[in-house]
This record gives sequence, structure tokens and C-alpha cells, in this order.
Amino acid sequence: MQRNSGGAVEPLKIAFIGAGRLATNLAPALQAAGCELLEVWSRTRESASELAARLKCHAAWGHVGEATTEADVYIISVSDAALQEVVGALHKGRERALFAHTAGSMPLGLFAEAGHERGGVFYPMQTFSKQRAVDFSRLHFFIEATTTEDLRLLAQLASGLTAEEHIHEAGSAERRRLHLAAVFACNFANRCFALADDILQDAGLPFDAMLPLIQETVEKLNTLSPEDAQTGPAVRRDSNVIGMQRAMLLQRPDLLAVYDTLTRSIQQPHSTPKQDK
Amino acid sequence: MQRNSGGAVEPLKIAFIGAGRLATNLAPALQAAGCELLEVWSRTRESASELAARLKCHAAWGHVGEATTEADVYIISVSDAALQEVVGALHKGRERALFAHTAGSMPLGLFAEAGHERGGVFYPMQTFSKQRAVDFSRLHFFIEATTTEDLRLLAQLASGLTAEEHIHEAGSAERRRLHLAAVFACNFANRCFALADDILQDAGLPFDAMLPLIQETVEKLNTLSPEDAQTGPAVRRDSNVIGMQRAMLLQRPDLLAVYDTLTRSIQQPHSTPKQDK
Repeated sequence: MQRNSGGAVEPLKIAFIGAGRLATNLAPALQAAGCELLEVWSRTRESASELAARLKCHAAWGHVGEATTEADVYIISVSDAALQEVVGALHKGRERALFAHTAGSMPLGLFAEAGHERGGVFYPMQTFSKQRAVDFSRLHFFIEATTTEDLRLLAQLASGLTAEEHIHEAGSAERRRLHLAAVFACNFANRCFALADDILQDAGLPFDAMLPLIQETVEKLNTLSPEDAQTGPAVRRDSNVIGMQRAMLLQRPDLLAVYDTLTRSIQQPHSTPKQDK
Repeated sequence: MQRNSGGAVEPLKIAFIGAGRLATNLAPALQAAGCELLEVWSRTRESASELAARLKCHAAWGHVGEATTEADVYIISVSDAALQEVVGALHKGRERALFAHTAGSMPLGLFAEAGHERGGVFYPMQTFSKQRAVDFSRLHFFIEATTTEDLRLLAQLASGLTAEEHIHEAGSAERRRLHLAAVFACNFANRCFALADDILQDAGLPFDAMLPLIQETVEKLNTLSPEDAQTGPAVRRDSNVIGMQRAMLLQRPDLLAVYDTLTRSIQQPHSTPKQDK
């Protein structure tokens, strides 16, 4: 929401640049929170039209210059590789609008580099799929903007989606660090699940049997720090089991490398043994 | 339950050897399913008494020979290192009872080696804490026994706790493989969570912000295989982000080793890139 000169509240007009997994989740959530979604632009007609149809708003596609010039806020959710170019091409005719990107590892400074005055970052800590609707009310947002006023504007957008205490101001260096932590917590943890699946498939054993184990591993984090929740042969320094498991992986050097690296990581000096039985 | 010669059903008398995290969860669940819990034995009086008090059954402690000789089934849940010795010391006076251990990586054959005829394994795929009650109805059990009759008996015990389709017969080699998969899915994934926590603590950023991300990463597994659910810079082969993240870890060779090993694992030939935005 933005106050106009008369003091009345006018809804912000928002355009989405990009119609990928993040936009597919964020745009409907902002609309449900009362924002006016003006347009979705995407490189391809198909993906722009698909999301725009869901939002009952205009679709634009092709060159990013085809996007509307009427929006107050452009939320730019494209690949990191395309971001700088897209921002450069959007600037003309939209000089007074706020541009905000959603990328973990891209700096705020790229807007100024493209000659655009009003820049911001609107980074939700989540992994998005097109098929699954995310519950934004539990998410944390990390926001940043060139001006205090625009920081407030992004905080207001976020407050339509999640609790005040989940909205954090974070500079580009902090956000890069958050993104790095997310790579460990999400991408690398998921790789461990995939390797477990791999080990079981080889023997025709059901991966579904792992789901309650994985869920409990995560539910423990509501009450214990992950360091305190650590169990297993590595933290117990159970060299019999470790030796047996390494022997099982001798034919799979790819898995053995992960086994040895994570076992060593768990056994670092600050790790303390836990009882496992 | 066991049929006596007259055809009436007599409850099985069960003793727990060991009062650790697994016994603390399994014993009350079996009692709630209608089993008669006769006794809990533990090395220390304190832990035996604590669990026995919860179960309102007898406690024994000290040498394992002090355990009751009256049970039909002994569920032996001690450390892998102690298991062989405990089984050896229990045999005398309990020759006709069924001994079942609960360890992922210990063979069924250890009972025969100790001269004990009726051996079995009762392996629930879960990580247990003393502080958290586990919901057994979702767990998978992997069972094994020397005789068909005892296999049926262990299946009956398990069917009091979980659905029939969650009870699997698995030999010792398969069970070792399940345990290895669990190390990846639970212990190694948890280590990735701990490293994310480490990265955030260094910068005073809140680990709680990661919880919705971690929960969504796991919830995806209900509909996608972990390989299909993989996201992030590694699977996108986003060398800009990977280079920037590696640079952030140069002062932390321990974290960099994990980063490089898991990035390589994700980028193995069979991994296919996924759209992340």
C-alpha cells in the first residue's frame, strides 16, 4: 500500500518480470494479500500466459521492453545470469518505478550500475516448485533497498505475507551468506536423501521407508540445535560400523567420497559424542 | 500374542535388555499394543528404574545375568559393541526364549554363534530420542528370524505398532544396506543442517529462518523423488554462484571440503539440470 498526496490509500500496481517457480508462488500470494497484479512478463508466451491467466492479469512476452510501463513495483525474478541485462533493458520508460529482485547471491548495487535509482531486494527463504503451493505465513523474508522509503515499502509488501518478526533487513553480504546456508540446508541435504535412495534402489529396497526417519530428523530441529541432534556411527566414533559401511561403498567411489567427507565433518573436534541407543 | 495348546491366547511376556533411546520409545509402544512388559534390565540402576517406572514393571541392573529368566521374548537394545557379550551372558537359563536385537548393522548369526537357537532382529527405521515420543504407526519395520515361526511372532509384534504393508522381511545384508542409507538420509542430512547453522551463527543470522526451507525440502519427497527434487546452483551448473560461494568458504577448508564433495556428487553425469527460478 502507498499513501498518495491526499492521504488516501491506493493499491500498489505490481508487475512480475519472470514467471518461474518463485513468481508462480509469490504473485498469487501478493494478490491474495490485496496487491494489484498488473502484468506478468516472461521470455515465452506460454509461461507468461499461464501465470497471467491464474492471476487474471495482462501477459507480456518476448523482449523485456514489451513489459508494461505502468507498474509501481517490478518484481524481477529471472535467472542470475539474465538479471543484469533484464534490469538494463527495463530502465527506460520506468525510471520512477521500484525494481526489486529476488535472488540470494546478487547484489543490490546492480540497479545503480544500470542507472536505476530505486532498487530493492525481496528474498524469501524458501525453495519453490510450480506444482506445490508454499505457505508464506511461515517464511522469513530478507529485504534491502537503496532508500529507507523503499525499504519500508518492501517491508509492507512482506507484511501482507508473513509475521512482522519474520521480516529482516539484510545487506547483500548477509544475503549471500543466507543463500550459502540454504545450499547446505536444502540442496546438500536433499543430495543426501538422493544418495540414500540410490543405495536402496540398488537392492530393491523401498525409499518410502526412509520418510518417517527424514521427517523425525527435521522435527527434532524444533527443539534441538542440529549439532545437539546429531546421531549415528560418526558422532559415536563407532569404528566397527564405519569400517563396515566404508567396505560396502568400495565399489562406489562417488558415494565413498561423500561418506568420508561428512564423517570427517561430523568428527571435527567441536563435535561431542552422543549416545545412540 | 501366542496360542497355547488349548487354543486360548496368552500375552507374550517381554523383557527389554537395555533402556536407551530405542527401548524408551519401543517398550511403551509395545505395552500400549497389549504386550506384557515383564522387566527392563540396564547396566545402571538409574536408567533401568526410570523406564521400568514408566512401564510399571520390574527393573533389573548390574550384570545382565540378573535379568529375569521368565520372559518369552528378550528385546536386546544395547550398543553394537556390547551386543555379542550380552547375548552370550544371557543364554544360560533362557535357552527356550526368543532373543531379538534391534541393530541395523549386526547380523542375525550372532545368536547362533552364542549357542542360542531362537534368534531374531526387530529393526525399526527411525532415529529415537528420549525426549520425543515417536509415532510408530508410520514406521517401517525390518524383521528377520532363524525360524519361520519366530519370524511370524516378530511380524505379529510389529503389527501391533504399524500397518502390515510397513513390515518387511530383510536379511542381515539388506538390513546393513538400510542402515547405510539411513546414515545418508538422517545423519549426513543433519550434518548439512548443522553446517548451515554454523554459517549463519558466524554472521549472527537466525537458523530458525531455515526451518520452513528444510520442511519444504522434506515435504517435496512425498510427491517427487529426491533426484527430481534437486535444486540449487550445483544442479543448475551455475558457475558464477558456485565460484562466489567457494570464495566465501576459503577461510573454512572444513566447509569447503563438504561444499566441493556434494557439488561434485550433484553434478555427476546422471544428474540432469533443473530450472530453479
